[in-house]
Amino acid sequence: MSQSSALPPSVTRLIDALMQLPGIGPKSASRLAYYLLRSPAELSLQLADALRDLKAHTRLCTVCFNITESDPCPVCSDPSRDHSVICVVEEPLDVMAIERAKVYRGAYHVLHGVISPINGVGPEDLKINELLARLRRAGDNGQPVREVILATNPTVEGEMTAAFIQRKLTGLDVRVTRLARGLPVGGDLEYADEVTLSRALEGRQQF
Amino acid sequence: MSQSSALPPSVTRLIDALMQLPGIGPKSASRLAYYLLRSPAELSLQLADALRDLKAHTRLCTVCFNITESDPCPVCSDPSRDHSVICVVEEPLDVMAIERAKVYRGAYHVLHGVISPINGVGPEDLKINELLARLRRAGDNGQPVREVILATNPTVEGEMTAAFIQRKLTGLDVRVTRLARGLPVGGDLEYADEVTLSRALEGRQQF
Repeated sequence: MSQSSALPPSVTRLIDALMQLPGIGPKSASRLAYYLLRSPAELSLQLADALRDLKAHTRLCTVCFNITESDPCPVCSDPSRDHSVICVVEEPLDVMAIERAKVYRGAYHVLHGVISPINGVGPEDLKINELLARLRRAGDNGQPVREVILATNPTVEGEMTAAFIQRKLTGLDVRVTRLARGLPVGGDLEYADEVTLSRALEGRQQF
Repeated sequence: MSQSSALPPSVTRLIDALMQLPGIGPKSASRLAYYLLRSPAELSLQLADALRDLKAHTRLCTVCFNITESDPCPVCSDPSRDHSVICVVEEPLDVMAIERAKVYRGAYHVLHGVISPINGVGPEDLKINELLARLRRAGDNGQPVREVILATNPTVEGEMTAAFIQRKLTGLDVRVTRLARGLPVGGDLEYADEVTLSRALEGRQQF
């Protein structure tokens, strides 16, 4: 007897759909489906509505390429932010992470990935040309960008992408910086890897 | 600046809905939402439809209380199965697990939980009275149940529930069995806990 005759088709369909999500295998999918079965119908309907609205209401901001419902996005159209500083990140979730820190008041530029030859992702697949065009446009408009913060992830691919962009920016009258490397706050020196420790030493600051 | 102004409301709504699921925290929810944003719209819509259908099409079988779209469920209404044997399990997912093993050809009875005083779950919250009524009904119809397999989980609460049901069944002309305890296939003797090992020794069989 197959599994499908023990499970109603509507449950099987949900499990199959959930299994397409990253990090959700057959067991987690079954458990989630069963949890939804036991929960009030509102939860399932709320999720269904949110999923339906997701694609219908979102697009990419034509300035910074972050995900947005209005174009330009709330950050790009906020006059109280400093648009002469652009923080370049890999993904929209990185914007969220930086916003959560509540210390950055500049603009963003979302690359939508990193240069990764192994995955066949080249510079032309990212929003790098769009960044260069944006810098040129800002200069033409008499509101030049003073600083570009390369905030790609501290991984091999992130560093490679940052280095590529940095080379592209040479010759332009713009300061290029990147996020400090060092010990994470709340971390333990004993468990820090050698690379992090050597970066923390290199970047040591006056107490 | 709040997180919500960096993230469109439709994305925030999906993240909030996902976070209500068990085992999904803010980080996993963000990652799932972002994955769905990047994926083709079909995936989101497929999930939305499956969620919508879930509650609309499913109910509990009035015989065995498994989740089903038709009542009685496919197992209960299958004449090729042996309805004189009832396997008592905690949850619908347990039925699925046993069906996957493809060795059991009897019927089921889903308790929908275990006796758990700490969580305020008593015998009357489970489908135990329904099991007793089912056994009586089967006898009255001249198709008595020969065997009840208590297949609750090998946990304290599962054992307690099995013991409770067993006491309720004394006096009835029915064989009460439970699943064998022992070493899991593919397991490692070295890593087996003492209780499992002692059960495996107690239940040793002729080679």
